[in-house]
Formats: sequence, structure tokens, C-alpha cells
Amino acid sequence: MESCGHGIVYIVGAGPGDPELLTIKAARLIREADVIVYDRLAPIKFIERSAKPGSELIYAGKRPGHHALTQDEINKLLAEKACEGKTVVRVHGGDPFLFGRGEEECLYLTKKGVKCIVVPGVTSAIAAPELACIPPTSRLVASSLAIVPGREAAEKKQRRVNYASIAKSVDTLVILMGVGRLGEIVRELLSGGIDPETPVAIIENASLPSQRTIVGRLRGIVERAREQGVKPPAVIVVGRVVELRDRICPSNP
Amino acid sequence: MESCGHGIVYIVGAGPGDPELLTIKAARLIREADVIVYDRLAPIKFIERSAKPGSELIYAGKRPGHHALTQDEINKLLAEKACEGKTVVRVHGGDPFLFGRGEEECLYLTKKGVKCIVVPGVTSAIAAPELACIPPTSRLVASSLAIVPGREAAEKKQRRVNYASIAKSVDTLVILMGVGRLGEIVRELLSGGIDPETPVAIIENASLPSQRTIVGRLRGIVERAREQGVKPPAVIVVGRVVELRDRICPSNP
Repeated sequence: MESCGHGIVYIVGAGPGDPELLTIKAARLIREADVIVYDRLAPIKFIERSAKPGSELIYAGKRPGHHALTQDEINKLLAEKACEGKTVVRVHGGDPFLFGRGEEECLYLTKKGVKCIVVPGVTSAIAAPELACIPPTSRLVASSLAIVPGREAAEKKQRRVNYASIAKSVDTLVILMGVGRLGEIVRELLSGGIDPETPVAIIENASLPSQRTIVGRLRGIVERAREQGVKPPAVIVVGRVVELRDRICPSNP
Repeated sequence: MESCGHGIVYIVGAGPGDPELLTIKAARLIREADVIVYDRLAPIKFIERSAKPGSELIYAGKRPGHHALTQDEINKLLAEKACEGKTVVRVHGGDPFLFGRGEEECLYLTKKGVKCIVVPGVTSAIAAPELACIPPTSRLVASSLAIVPGREAAEKKQRRVNYASIAKSVDTLVILMGVGRLGEIVRELLSGGIDPETPVAIIENASLPSQRTIVGRLRGIVERAREQGVKPPAVIVVGRVVELRDRICPSNP
């Protein structure tokens, strides 16, 4: 194993978007970092405001006229900066290890002898439903919960996500990054035997001022989402917990 | 619907235990609250240190010589204090709506005309594995995750959790509050056809200085947990992600 001096990389979750949903630890690490690497769903304004003078802020996402850094480039960048003895904070939206690339970054860094510390964040898988007044589990209607991605990595080796089989075995199904594939996922759920009357909610931009929730049933939700122009980032919730929304907060967001 | 003046109740998640894993919002609400109602798994020292002078701190858990408040008593207390026009913060360990009683509290308050706002927290279901260097999902070995309780509420009306069926449909199974029933759960998983060689980790006191992780396989984990004297609070993780632990951090906590 190579050695890399005293550098360290914190793989930090920044929560669903509202900077107040950062943890105290994430905020402190951002303030103290020598180098901050972040992408599109990170609370960018908070980072720019909080970073200490002289710190290096590196945007890893796509922006006009620039290509996005590849995961390989990000991995190398994190290792390189840490090997210079710097304290590096890699900021991920949501939680860094739940369908994020934080795990890969940590595997790479550890292999290179760079110390990698994960700082969990508030995941939108749980926070988005809650902020739309939908409890992910409920004594009344739901004692189990599954979280799945709406799309899978191209290079993935493990088995495909079987949406219908998972939806049958748990009470609440939460789908992350699924808006672009909503039609296919709903078709798969229906053809797999899930009740077309099952309630569904789609929460867009959870925790931001632009948060919006679309509610419907499996039959019809694709059309409704299209009519409403639903766009990522959005979290899809399938299950009876959606029906509790009006009872949790009558004037819900 | 009754009306209750300008009072409000925030149902707040305080994360797995480390006060630095509180969100900025949770910490602010605790500082600003007129009344704070909290129980055993809340970061009590942080609350005592942060509450403003003159605020009322109410412990709802069991302590020597006192009985714990019942859920009914807590619900009524929250409504009563809010109806006096006070800003009430109800602090839950972890996330308040994920197998917590926050949902019930909110349902009760809303019915009484009291405004209830949920503030999501870092759930130990995700944070505990991560803090033990186990990514809940992984591009390499796990694209889906289920979260289930280890014990169910006595008064519950919904179907029982079928551990084996859920473990078959997802790649990672996370069990909360399951240490007391570990033997039964493992028996159920094995008799339901889950491979006895499936890796298991039990993370005790996640995020606290006393954090400890026991690793094994389904066959043998009950004995190992007994030998090691594992106690709640603990999170159980079942699945191949447990094998990534040494590659994520070689000198793991």
C-alpha cells in the first residue's frame, strides 16, 4: 500500500438540498477544508460562503463550456490532493454511500493508502417523503421499507433490481433517480402484479423552496407526471403511506 | 378541528447519537425552543447545553424512580404546550418518522389543530453501517436495500414483517432494534432459505465513542453476539456489503 503523508479525505453527505439539513459535522468540515470537491446536487452557495479563505473549490459536475470530471478523474484528484497533505472534503448530495459514488471513492483512496472517512448525511430517500408529509413507515400501514435506484450503473455486475418483487415483499418502495424511467418502472410494477390502485407520490426538489409533490395511483401516475412536467431530482414513493399525507399535514407542501 | 393559537411542534430527528450528526436545523430548533421533549436516545447533554435559559426540558423516557411517559401522555403534553402558544421541539433519536413514534405524534397533533413540522434526521439504518465502513449499497454487490424493525408494535394491524422474503428480494437487509430478537430473526432467515454463509454485521452504539462492530455469518452470529455481550441500541446488516468493510477502511472502528 502506498503511503500519502498526513492527507485525509472526508466523504461527506450534504443532505437533500436545504443547507440547514447539513449536519453540524459536514458544515464544520466544509469550513475547515483545504480542498472541497463537489457536484451539482451539493449546496453550492453554502460551500462558497463557508469555505475558508485560500481553500480550493473544485466543481466536478458539468457546466457550460466545461466537461464534467469522470469518476476516475475525481478519484485521482482526491488522492492527489490528499497526498499533498491537504484536508480534502468530497461533498455528495444526500448520503454519500447510498447509491452515491462515495463508496467507490473510498475503495480507491484506501487502496492508494489515503485515509478516507465517511460522514453520513440525511438521505433524500427518507427526507423527501417526510418533507412531503409522508412517513416512510407507519404503525398504521407500513412496517418495512425498500430503497432502490431508478436507473442502474452501466458497468454494474450485480443482479438487476426487480421492482415488482421488492414491492411485493415490503410495504413502502422508495425509488431514487427514477423520474427519467418512470414509465418503464410503472410498467414493470404493473406487469409484476402490483395493484394499479397503489398510491404513488413523486417529490421534486425536496427541501428546496421549489419543492413540489405529485400524488396519484400507479395507473395514471406516468401521465400525471408528464402533464406536470416533473423533472429530476425527484423521489418516488409507492405504497399506502402516501395516503397519510393529508392527515399528517392538511396544508401540505 | 380545534384551534391552538400560534403554537407549533417540531418533530425533530437527532441522528444516531454523535451530537455533530445533528442537522444545523435540529440544533437551531433546540436552541430556540420553549419546550423540549426528548427521550433516551436523544443527545441529552447537547440538549441541556444548548437549550435557551428558561426553556422547559422534559424527559419522556424511563429513569430510576420515575415511570416513562406513555405515548398518549407524550401526545397530550405536546399538544398542551403548543396550545399555550409555545414552540415545542420533540427530539427523537435517529430519524423521527422511520419506525419512530413521530408519525403518531404528528397525526395526533394535526387532529387537534396543532401545527406539526417534521425535521428529518440522519437515520442509524444508513449511518450505522457506514460508520462501520459498510456501504448500505454498492456498485459491486448491492443495488437495493430494505429497512425493517426487529420487533413490531403490539397493537399493529398491518402484516408481519417476513424477513426471509424481504432478504430474498433485496441485496442488503438492515434490521433496526433487532438485537433482543436476533435468535428468532436469524432462525426465520435460515428456515426461509437464506444462505447460512451470508455475511452479517452488528453495529452497537453507532457514532458514539463506544461504537463496536461484530462481524460474522448468519450461521454463528447469534453465538458470537452472545459471547460479545451485544446490547441495544444496535443495527444489524445482512448481505454481501459487509465484505467490503476491510476494503473501505483497513483499520476499521
